[in-house]
Amino acid sequence: METDLSSMIPLHAGSQQKHDTLCIFGTGDFGRSLGCKMLQCGYSVVFGSRNPQATGLLPKGAEVLSHREAAQRASVIILAIHREHYEFLTGLTDVLEGKVLVDVSNNLKINQYPESNAEYLAQLIPKAEVVKAFNTVSAWALQSGTLDASRQVFICGNDHKSKQKIVDIVQALGLTPLDQGTLLASKDVENYPLQLFPMWRLPVYIATGLTVFIFIYCLLTDVIYSFLSYRKDISFRIAISIPNKVFPIVSLILLGLVYLPGIFASILQLYRGTKYSRFPNWLDHWMLCRKQLGLVALAFAFLHVLYTLIIPTRYYVRWHRSDNVINQIKSNATSPFDIIIAWRTDSYMALGMLGFLFYVILGITSLPSVSNVVNWREFRFVQSKLGYLTLLLCTGHTLIYGWSKFLDVSRYRWYLPLPYMLSLVIPCIVLVIKFVLIMPCVDKSITQIRQGWERIPKSDMKSTCTNGTIAV
Amino acid sequence: METDLSSMIPLHAGSQQKHDTLCIFGTGDFGRSLGCKMLQCGYSVVFGSRNPQATGLLPKGAEVLSHREAAQRASVIILAIHREHYEFLTGLTDVLEGKVLVDVSNNLKINQYPESNAEYLAQLIPKAEVVKAFNTVSAWALQSGTLDASRQVFICGNDHKSKQKIVDIVQALGLTPLDQGTLLASKDVENYPLQLFPMWRLPVYIATGLTVFIFIYCLLTDVIYSFLSYRKDISFRIAISIPNKVFPIVSLILLGLVYLPGIFASILQLYRGTKYSRFPNWLDHWMLCRKQLGLVALAFAFLHVLYTLIIPTRYYVRWHRSDNVINQIKSNATSPFDIIIAWRTDSYMALGMLGFLFYVILGITSLPSVSNVVNWREFRFVQSKLGYLTLLLCTGHTLIYGWSKFLDVSRYRWYLPLPYMLSLVIPCIVLVIKFVLIMPCVDKSITQIRQGWERIPKSDMKSTCTNGTIAV
Amino acid sequence: METDLSSMIPLHAGSQQKHDTLCIFGTGDFGRSLGCKMLQCGYSVVFGSRNPQATGLLPKGAEVLSHREAAQRASVIILAIHREHYEFLTGLTDVLEGKVLVDVSNNLKINQYPESNAEYLAQLIPKAEVVKAFNTVSAWALQSGTLDASRQVFICGNDHKSKQKIVDIVQALGLTPLDQGTLLASKDVENYPLQLFPMWRLPVYIATGLTVFIFIYCLLTDVIYSFLSYRKDISFRIAISIPNKVFPIVSLILLGLVYLPGIFASILQLYRGTKYSRFPNWLDHWMLCRKQLGLVALAFAFLHVLYTLIIPTRYYVRWHRSDNVINQIKSNATSPFDIIIAWRTDSYMALGMLGFLFYVILGITSLPSVSNVVNWREFRFVQSKLGYLTLLLCTGHTLIYGWSKFLDVSRYRWYLPLPYMLSLVIPCIVLVIKFVLIMPCVDKSITQIRQGWERIPKSDMKSTCTNGTIAV
Repeated sequence: METDLSSMIPLHAGSQQKHDTLCIFGTGDFGRSLGCKMLQCGYSVVFGSRNPQATGLLPKGAEVLSHREAAQRASVIILAIHREHYEFLTGLTDVLEGKVLVDVSNNLKINQYPESNAEYLAQLIPKAEVVKAFNTVSAWALQSGTLDASRQVFICGNDHKSKQKIVDIVQALGLTPLDQGTLLASKDVENYPLQLFPMWRLPVYIATGLTVFIFIYCLLTDVIYSFLSYRKDISFRIAISIPNKVFPIVSLILLGLVYLPGIFASILQLYRGTKYSRFPNWLDHWMLCRKQLGLVALAFAFLHVLYTLIIPTRYYVRWHRSDNVINQIKSNATSPFDIIIAWRTDSYMALGMLGFLFYVILGITSLPSVSNVVNWREFRFVQSKLGYLTLLLCTGHTLIYGWSKFLDVSRYRWYLPLPYMLSLVIPCIVLVIKFVLIMPCVDKSITQIRQGWERIPKSDMKSTCTNGTIAV
Repeated sequence: METDLSSMIPLHAGSQQKHDTLCIFGTGDFGRSLGCKMLQCGYSVVFGSRNPQATGLLPKGAEVLSHREAAQRASVIILAIHREHYEFLTGLTDVLEGKVLVDVSNNLKINQYPESNAEYLAQLIPKAEVVKAFNTVSAWALQSGTLDASRQVFICGNDHKSKQKIVDIVQALGLTPLDQGTLLASKDVENYPLQLFPMWRLPVYIATGLTVFIFIYCLLTDVIYSFLSYRKDISFRIAISIPNKVFPIVSLILLGLVYLPGIFASILQLYRGTKYSRFPNWLDHWMLCRKQLGLVALAFAFLHVLYTLIIPTRYYVRWHRSDNVINQIKSNATSPFDIIIAWRTDSYMALGMLGFLFYVILGITSLPSVSNVVNWREFRFVQSKLGYLTLLLCTGHTLIYGWSKFLDVSRYRWYLPLPYMLSLVIPCIVLVIKFVLIMPCVDKSITQIRQGWERIPKSDMKSTCTNGTIAV
Repeated sequence: METDLSSMIPLHAGSQQKHDTLCIFGTGDFGRSLGCKMLQCGYSVVFGSRNPQATGLLPKGAEVLSHREAAQRASVIILAIHREHYEFLTGLTDVLEGKVLVDVSNNLKINQYPESNAEYLAQLIPKAEVVKAFNTVSAWALQSGTLDASRQVFICGNDHKSKQKIVDIVQALGLTPLDQGTLLASKDVENYPLQLFPMWRLPVYIATGLTVFIFIYCLLTDVIYSFLSYRKDISFRIAISIPNKVFPIVSLILLGLVYLPGIFASILQLYRGTKYSRFPNWLDHWMLCRKQLGLVALAFAFLHVLYTLIIPTRYYVRWHRSDNVINQIKSNATSPFDIIIAWRTDSYMALGMLGFLFYVILGITSLPSVSNVVNWREFRFVQSKLGYLTLLLCTGHTLIYGWSKFLDVSRYRWYLPLPYMLSLVIPCIVLVIKFVLIMPCVDKSITQIRQGWERIPKSDMKSTCTNGTIAV
């Protein structure tokens, strides 16, 4: 709906009502788009350009002057120019004094320069107030008015007043300002739009690696094995049967990996007797992407559910069943109903489906808008209590599915473990250790430690101030 | 949780703590509810009424005075009266001078009057500062305290200070202020609460039209045909079999329609050699409701999945299968296992399910809270890359499903194309053109154009300032 | 992404850039964490402590002084100490005068003290401005920088300026301030982090109760009955068959319970002829947790769908079907195809699946981020129109599923009604009454009443000001 609203506003272009004047250096695409949007929202806009004459193609109602003249007109100057051209600003130091310089620039790759563009600007023109803003907004979005994507504008700067000015402008443009603190944050703000799901990378890599490995493993022990042994071509199993072995295995392993770092952290804290010493980086990073790991696991579980439910519709299955019936009749040997099998199959299916329900609930609560309206107590209840319940159900599901298969030697191909066993290792380890950790005695001391108690108090607080993650 | 909080606040009704005084003109339902809420949040409230005596039924702790007296008491005056009665305010111009007049009015239909109520008010009392606010909040919501629906209050006005005053009040009432800029936006703000899913209308119409058409088409070529030809009554297929042909077809066509406008836009830009000339309105509108189109397509895909997975549970299917087996035995002719069919069926099912996964992921990323925390690069990665992958998978799913059916003349009824073919037209066109567009040579020039480069630079910038959508 | 940003900020620890100074009383875990975060965001921090010497383990760059000295240094003093120790502050009244005291304390249980900690503080130091804030943020979250859970900081206080100061700090820390009004709200703010899904409790209790009851009911009439009557052990049905009877029944009853209170409310309003008299508490509470009721119902529906789709994969079902075929052949009596059954089964499945689609859509629209961007008209359209459509579809689904079963005496065990009948009672009542209520004549007067019209105007407005919920 908002997009709708904001997309209507442009209709009022050319408003006579006057906000204060804004100055934009640079008449490139972004400068033009921004100026255009500002005009639409009732600001008057002055462009600063190297050769004011030669610049066609500017928004109606906007003036174009030399940089110097333009700068004098406004108290806020938006620099829609590349960092490479900042030098020339030093020539304008006198007019820029006390003005708010808005750095909207982005780089081509993350951490391209030692210091952020905004910090570099602040060093160039120390007498001006530099504010970083608008770098996350796309020129296209401004023009199209369809801000489907982020309407968030990260803002940082050292001077509170100047920041407030920009915050007001951002709001007037119908965008959402997000104060990120001082210019120190500008590096992150500049890196932000260059990121492509940084937190998702590790989980996706792990998932891909696992998938490939398990797939080949199943291919060997299933299709290839039966081809080599019996010259039987069951290659068609590559389409559904084998993926439907791979998906649940990967999903369960990933779910285990979501809770493993928490276990490590607890043990580490117990061992160190304090929470004020930093975790190793790999553990930190692992903990920070648990949510993403979980969601990837959910996607695999989702596929497993689909692939399982489609089974009876498959030609192979249908053929197999009718073939089975026909043979029974021909051989006149009807297989009797075995209540044990009925119990076993039904219960592992039931466990699986219950597990999937909680899986989905976990996924839903990880939606930003949902996790924003729950308090810490609730969030931890869902993420740890429900999370472990899910892990428990899914592990149970797999165990009962496996049942006594592992005893049946004939099932082992080339003495390799059965695929489903691979998926059980990590979850079982996690569950067992967790079980130990929640024993009253152990739990008590962990809780103490997490409340700040220390076995040997020592003030290496620095570590706390760096980004040490605490196990939740 | 918040609703919970806000719904508790009323318990503190009748606070002695004093904020500044607010004046409300009009003792109607909305005026009373608003006054009541304000009292609860610690403001003191004065009602202005035509005959202060005769108005019973007002919140405890609120005074009722004549309009003139009430106005003198407060610096902020909320007008909870209909636009029709604004005239009488002209009589109070002297007391209203310099005060903040809050226009909360709504109209009965969109664009009822040439100018918005707020603008009309601003003309009536030029010396007062008019702010539009609260018109999106419902009286019921204020009373019940359950703000399940939007807690957003759109605010617009020409004077920044006055706007800030209202923003503070809105926040104090536990609502979310959204600055929409100057009074120019008031028309949109007033139209907003009258809208009923404006962006959904077109997609829903298209979907309905397609559904009806395809349904009748299938009805003819399936039920009616076989009745006319063989006097065979298979009308029961209307319940599931035929819908399960209609849903996937409509879903795929809609998905194609999501990406078609982007294709048009690119071609148009290539042809015009610039992005600074506006797209035709129909294309603009089409592009603005791509998201909704996609979500409707997802709903149909969802139904297709359900209807497909239920198949083996159906009485007809079960009967058919056992009948089939019985015949095989009687005729003593068992059909051999055909690995080609196994491959074909399994692989189109696999493609379909993978396609559905990405379909769902696309749907999730279109949730406001999700799309708000991704940057542009990520948003476009998901929406275009993943989007086209989905389209590709679903088209492949349909192609393999069709396989060689189209060669089998016996399947054509009345020489009409098979239903599934209808669904392939648009997606295939889109995919082919897209394939051409991403060829390095073509892609390069599109990228240039989108970065603001022009073949024949000409400054019809006006068009950019109107709402021209850029293809994403 | 934001978590990502905020989690990077700590890297800039030890900034030379100077915001104003903040003072923190108390060197406990939370005080340290908060101080640490503030240092990272460029504030300078002074700790106030009983014995400044003995406190090791403080953030680098923070000073530690006596309470008195520390207080003199800053205009904002954060009290990271327990309410129990507030008394000692009375000794500092002179230095605290005019300062902003931020109460971050939480209690151990809800409504532990007659007045909130913040109000108690305000009484102790009347000359200081007390602001309640930060109590919803966890120390761990501050340290880890991973604010997956709520980044919301509820703020309330009587003095607007002081509140604004805190709002600025909160934003600078990258958190989201939420103004909750005056100190009157502090009790709610303090209770908030202690809550564990308060609105979910009732729905979950109801659901659990119903589930247990229906489960036992089915167990009796199914497993136990057939054991007692025919000595037949079908206990395996406990795993899937019986739950798949329980889930839909509970789901439908819950869905009925979502719309029942609305019905009651309308009748009550019609009877009383006014909306300005408060509903009984039980009805209020019921209406406030309708959303949660609906979501629980959705979860059960979800399980029902899964449990139904898995049916043909089950060993029992497969065995049963092939057994059935074999018998047909042996007895040489093939059952003919019955088009009536085909129609009936297909159509109740179709209704069920359509119902589920709308169920899911309702669930999605109840996501905070979605319901935030729809206006009231749209919200009520979805929640009432679509809601009743869903109820209608699901009831129809059940009715057609039941069909003529209720006529078949043999199905009644111990003269108990068939389970599915239990689920139909409430939904049918709701639908019938609703049908009456939307009759033009009745509807007209309800609408009038809801627009504030009264049959016998009487000003018991007090009730409106208390939390009376209006039926939506």
